Amino acid sequence: MKALRSMSKQELEQFHAELCKQFEDAKGKGLKLDMSRGKPTPAQLDMGMPMMDVLTSESDMICENGMDCRNYGVLDGIAEARRLMGDMLDVPAENIILGGSASLTLMYDTVARSMLHGVNGSTPWCRLDKVKFLCPVPGYDRHFKITESFGIEMINIPMTESGPDMDLVEQYVNHDPAVKGIWCTPKYSNPQGISYSDETVRRFAALNPAAEDFRIYWDNAYCVHHLYEDDQDEILEILSECAACGHPNMVFEFASTSKISFAGSGISCVASSVENLNWFRKTMTVQMISHDKINQLRHARYFKDKAGILAQMKRHADLMRPKFEAVLSVFEEELSDLQIAEWTKPKGGYFISFEAMEGCAKAIVAKCKEAGVVLTDAGAPFPYGRDPKDSNIRIAPSYPTQDEMKAAAEVFVLCVKLCSAERLLRG
Amino acid sequence: MKALRSMSKQELEQFHAELCKQFEDAKGKGLKLDMSRGKPTPAQLDMGMPMMDVLTSESDMICENGMDCRNYGVLDGIAEARRLMGDMLDVPAENIILGGSASLTLMYDTVARSMLHGVNGSTPWCRLDKVKFLCPVPGYDRHFKITESFGIEMINIPMTESGPDMDLVEQYVNHDPAVKGIWCTPKYSNPQGISYSDETVRRFAALNPAAEDFRIYWDNAYCVHHLYEDDQDEILEILSECAACGHPNMVFEFASTSKISFAGSGISCVASSVENLNWFRKTMTVQMISHDKINQLRHARYFKDKAGILAQMKRHADLMRPKFEAVLSVFEEELSDLQIAEWTKPKGGYFISFEAMEGCAKAIVAKCKEAGVVLTDAGAPFPYGRDPKDSNIRIAPSYPTQDEMKAAAEVFVLCVKLCSAERLLRG
Repeated sequence: MKALRSMSKQELEQFHAELCKQFEDAKGKGLKLDMSRGKPTPAQLDMGMPMMDVLTSESDMICENGMDCRNYGVLDGIAEARRLMGDMLDVPAENIILGGSASLTLMYDTVARSMLHGVNGSTPWCRLDKVKFLCPVPGYDRHFKITESFGIEMINIPMTESGPDMDLVEQYVNHDPAVKGIWCTPKYSNPQGISYSDETVRRFAALNPAAEDFRIYWDNAYCVHHLYEDDQDEILEILSECAACGHPNMVFEFASTSKISFAGSGISCVASSVENLNWFRKTMTVQMISHDKINQLRHARYFKDKAGILAQMKRHADLMRPKFEAVLSVFEEELSDLQIAEWTKPKGGYFISFEAMEGCAKAIVAKCKEAGVVLTDAGAPFPYGRDPKDSNIRIAPSYPTQDEMKAAAEVFVLCVKLCSAERLLRG
Repeated sequence: MKALRSMSKQELEQFHAELCKQFEDAKGKGLKLDMSRGKPTPAQLDMGMPMMDVLTSESDMICENGMDCRNYGVLDGIAEARRLMGDMLDVPAENIILGGSASLTLMYDTVARSMLHGVNGSTPWCRLDKVKFLCPVPGYDRHFKITESFGIEMINIPMTESGPDMDLVEQYVNHDPAVKGIWCTPKYSNPQGISYSDETVRRFAALNPAAEDFRIYWDNAYCVHHLYEDDQDEILEILSECAACGHPNMVFEFASTSKISFAGSGISCVASSVENLNWFRKTMTVQMISHDKINQLRHARYFKDKAGILAQMKRHADLMRPKFEAVLSVFEEELSDLQIAEWTKPKGGYFISFEAMEGCAKAIVAKCKEAGVVLTDAGAPFPYGRDPKDSNIRIAPSYPTQDEMKAAAEVFVLCVKLCSAERLLRG
């Protein structure tokens, strides 16, 4: 098969006619597949079931400092669970406060606090005319929804293979005092699976913000989510990099076990300087007495330490890897000659990012839906849901089985070809 | 023993001298008792342990609509848990949204949303010059901390035996558009154990607020927390009363199982009109994907329905009742003749409210602390921590054992007598 752009009109029409037939066949199969969200597959959740047995007797409920986890108290979270999360993120437990079952809520609440109370003594953002956040794109739709919900202006920052375009980031952060934050998923990024290079992390740490209350929102959601045992990305630890550059308060790091233990029933944390965490405590102590310490204890007892987490993640990878590979091999086989698309080949995380021809993403997603394959809405990985090129599609291989994933990928490439041919025929 | 006020100076001095000796003896015992917070006692928490066994196998994790509770989804909470909480509050499940492990967080977040986004389309409170809340006193310190943290002006409303002074409430709510809310614990109130009369609830429902975004914060924290099988308070169901008066959106009701299952590891809910709940959903969907559905399922499976909850609460009452009675009998025996104090005799809830002579509460709490008995800070049940009469002390009998409670009560009455005598001697 040759590149689509080098086909004559007649060749293209014939190609298109054949695809239409294939598409009708595909529709006839009545598929019902969902690749829209980064949901764990049931087999992965089954791997967490031993957690349900670690706390059964009264004496099990006492944490290491002698406290009864069934009772009120301990705003920050119990010591062993703070240590576990710190271990996972390579930061000391004193730099950790535990949240509830979702790091998303921690992020939302952090922005909400900044709006209402100001960051650590600064002017509350709700009193400012303009607040801006930088948004590396494509990125995580739920980040952008948070800033959008508060009327914060979002500025697209293109992603490169080593992270966000740091020239642009520096230009904005160091010169515009209205820029108060940036959303990052630094490791196995959502949706591209890109890990920030050491130089990128160092340039982040060396930022010299025009706004004293500028903060990096470092969502390390995929910090231990490797696909391969022998080929793993590692990124520099951001808290110590920032401290070394004299900006110990510049970063809020977030993480959770949603994709390690149970989705939506894990534990979450924020990692930051003691000064920043004291600012968190000031409002947290009004908002709650404590988070669910029983669940914290369950996690600490079951995983014990980073090694325990990594052992579980290796088992997850064994499930996830074949699905990523199934998708990538269908893409490779069916699309590489045609030169109508590019895609990422992540070494970890939950997503593959697909770049179709400009103006085709929405059409492809709609076509797939017609044939029973649900994808994330085109545009979702961009602020306001607007992909300026209408070319990016996020593929989430985590939930379907390997066979389903292959079937879904086949429908997907069919739709990609069809929409691309139509695009070229329209001229 | 005769009334303290009718003693001669000499009698009083002799009485005081004797008390001083007794106080030194008490200090010598090296007691270490905590009556400061409404914490469940370990024996009560033990009663919840069977909950830890209801979810063990993979198939246990599927809720009634076939959904896997270990995975993402269901913003509102799973149907069976919404039904359970609705059953407890006598409202339909469609009027319930589940929160996380604490109703306090739901209340905080509701005020925060009103500040930032406005109540259901109204002007965000952060754009108003003045926002006021009515605070029936004595009340729950954590309610007042929430409104204080947002700079909301708090207005004391005296409690009567049938609830807040409704003449005053009507005067403020119906005429001052800056009054946006009122904090209520309508059943077995914190700290007095007062249940609002039917007339009080009906007058609440019939309010005609000057502000369209006025809401009643109805914290039904002790809705099933009876002490006696045969002598229980019941209050009118507020949602239907408000709806009947043509104000279906006027109330947010809150509750949790913190004092039913495990403190800080229970499930919480807000009950309100569908219109109000849709306003909740609009911001909740940005703040989170879902709360911990495994814990929701654990509660639904274990308690099943209101009868299941009431059966558990009867067991709790058997623990709690003797402690309340121990305290009350010490008060009765040691203080009634002296006429220096009044106290409530609740039929449920977690607290006894004690009225000392004016100007004595802080001194009594300090004296108790000296003798090893920790009480809630004097003033805590009032906005800004200021008891205008310095007379109210909250007694929390839930945590200590019955014997400890008796010992603590004996120290307490000793300190009451001592401080009262000193007050009278000072003239």
